[in-house]
Amino acid sequence: MEYCKKTLSNRSKYSALATKLCFKEKGHAGKCSEFPYLDHFTKNAPTVKAKVVRDATMTTGASWKSDEAGPNRIIRWVMLLDDATLKTDFKLDMGKLKPGVVAKLRDKAATYDQCMEVAAMLTLAAYEMTGAPAPTKEVGAYLEQRFGGIVPGKTTCIVCRLPLAFDAFKKAARGKAEIETAHKNPREHNEKNVGFAHRECNIAQGNKPLDEFYAWIDGILKRVDR
Amino acid sequence: MEYCKKTLSNRSKYSALATKLCFKEKGHAGKCSEFPYLDHFTKNAPTVKAKVVRDATMTTGASWKSDEAGPNRIIRWVMLLDDATLKTDFKLDMGKLKPGVVAKLRDKAATYDQCMEVAAMLTLAAYEMTGAPAPTKEVGAYLEQRFGGIVPGKTTCIVCRLPLAFDAFKKAARGKAEIETAHKNPREHNEKNVGFAHRECNIAQGNKPLDEFYAWIDGILKRVDR
Repeated sequence: MEYCKKTLSNRSKYSALATKLCFKEKGHAGKCSEFPYLDHFTKNAPTVKAKVVRDATMTTGASWKSDEAGPNRIIRWVMLLDDATLKTDFKLDMGKLKPGVVAKLRDKAATYDQCMEVAAMLTLAAYEMTGAPAPTKEVGAYLEQRFGGIVPGKTTCIVCRLPLAFDAFKKAARGKAEIETAHKNPREHNEKNVGFAHRECNIAQGNKPLDEFYAWIDGILKRVDR
Repeated sequence: MEYCKKTLSNRSKYSALATKLCFKEKGHAGKCSEFPYLDHFTKNAPTVKAKVVRDATMTTGASWKSDEAGPNRIIRWVMLLDDATLKTDFKLDMGKLKPGVVAKLRDKAATYDQCMEVAAMLTLAAYEMTGAPAPTKEVGAYLEQRFGGIVPGKTTCIVCRLPLAFDAFKKAARGKAEIETAHKNPREHNEKNVGFAHRECNIAQGNKPLDEFYAWIDGILKRVDR
């Protein structure tokens, strides 16, 4: 698909770093939109929409809690800047964070374009979950044009490969959401490398690439006499 | 071994709940001691000693941070008391904690005797790690009498079954210790069920009993086409 790519207004304090663009099809009618494929979830499943945008564009930052250390999450493409620029231009002092937190944040850096790819792909994956709502005609046509169509029930946890149910977006155990956005290789945030996973699967994978994770658990099973 | 079991003085605010006892052999010479088998680590590896006592006797409580919610860790046998007693006798209001935190704390409850068993067994496991110091004559004789002798290099991670090195007690990645105390069945804190594990293994196991964990990863590998 060729995108409209008109510049959208942007009130973020990081607006200088990435112009927000329109991802509707070139020559579209009506208003421009950065996430046209999320129009339906915006009304119908707003927490799923928020999760897709957040996970696609923001780092996690669980340890990044104090005011001094900055916000809990930060835009992924901001994490592409060097320490000096972050300090002078955005008052984010990476030197005040623990090395482990810095490494985690830097691992999650991605370009604006990568984040936009991931958001569209996660939206498709959500619609392909068991029990997902059917998209509106507009959203369905858009996703079909980008990805070749929606296959209901196709989405599995990228780690354990069991089907994921759309309902699980609402579920949480001990305050933690049951579905998380996960990476086949935790250091690459792009369309081919991202998907949804059960929370317990994502945690078990940790920071290992999936291939390494599977080899690791294979080794465990070989040593265990069950 | 028959223990001395004389009552020791106890300055804990929970002293009414468990009399601290002497675990030297009955009829021993010298002063009484609750942890005689830790005498050597107390001087030689004080952080290992502190870890053994802490993990054997205290709950974890990572989410239990605010003053209102109480201390971060609490004695395991205190968690055997009911909510009403905790509130009236110890000013611990379980109702103020999130249900997930309460469940976690209750899972970690154990009797004083169980905790004392676990402490001795963890000490043995530490001495049986690759590269562990040899115990003093007294400690060696004590552990031999209780457990039938120390086998250097015998201790493996209870999850992945790879040997654990004593040096790893000093190692930490991103601020987290590399060796953790782990449970074959996370809900049973007793000598037969506890051991050391790599942090990543303990995290991957999560709250599953080991049998269930192995069956789970076996299922994953069967579904994955590698």
